[in-house]
Amino acid sequence: MSEDHADRSRILRERDYRWEGAEDAAYKAEGTHFSGVRRQTLAGGPAGQEALGFETRYFQVEPGGYTSLERHQHAHVVIIVRGHAEVILDQRVASARPLDCLYIAPWTWHQLHAVDADEPLGFLCSVDRDRDRPERPDADALTRLCADPAVARRIRT
Amino acid sequence: MSEDHADRSRILRERDYRWEGAEDAAYKAEGTHFSGVRRQTLAGGPAGQEALGFETRYFQVEPGGYTSLERHQHAHVVIIVRGHAEVILDQRVASARPLDCLYIAPWTWHQLHAVDADEPLGFLCSVDRDRDRPERPDADALTRLCADPAVARRIRT
Repeated sequence: MSEDHADRSRILRERDYRWEGAEDAAYKAEGTHFSGVRRQTLAGGPAGQEALGFETRYFQVEPGGYTSLERHQHAHVVIIVRGHAEVILDQRVASARPLDCLYIAPWTWHQLHAVDADEPLGFLCSVDRDRDRPERPDADALTRLCADPAVARRIRT
Repeated sequence: MSEDHADRSRILRERDYRWEGAEDAAYKAEGTHFSGVRRQTLAGGPAGQEALGFETRYFQVEPGGYTSLERHQHAHVVIIVRGHAEVILDQRVASARPLDCLYIAPWTWHQLHAVDADEPLGFLCSVDRDRDRPERPDADALTRLCADPAVARRIRT
């Protein structure tokens, strides 16, 4: 069986937080609820990697930028590799730095902010290949989240 | 639904390549076919993270050490985070450095070596939660692998 698969192994080489051979993609196709984000899919997305039940992506958020505030059934595993983050996890704000590992449980409202003045936030994010689409907060959800002053100060929609 | 799950989100904080709250485990329960390896499961293993279809582990190999030479049906995603590696991928040897991303395809013979004199090799490795057990090479497989002189020099069994 070896010969069928062996040549599909590959190494994506990183240089300045870009991986050659992994296509750059816009973070989301549309929307104004995020800022300064780019992404690359490192594993699980490319043709020939269907054996994986998950995908690993790299996201980079420019200083002052943030990801979309959302929640969903599927869980996230996030490992910071560059810069510092403040992360909204439902009604709290936590800080995270390189190599910290976040497990974002199903249905947790979450948003990652790049808080360094001169260094982007870069993180790896792995997710199940089959997953639901994110849900955005309505006015009631925002009111509940903003009950915490630290969340209210940090949140961007 | 949010309230059921929200408190399960967590941050594992890293310090000197150890994550507090993630148990240290021996690399394998037994065997002499690897050397100087420790591991921690960062995500997908802990109770309450069954929502994930995969696991993310950290492996650290001391200078001169190596992982077990093996192959299996399931694929690996490896991202180096510390030190330098030489990696056997079937009949070739490749080098890898921090943030390089390896996709190890099904049934690829593989072994990771820590090649720095004074720095361990540390890498993240993600795998499907449901996976087969590794297979070790027999004499015929070793002969085929060692047909390449670079592999023959590097391989440890």
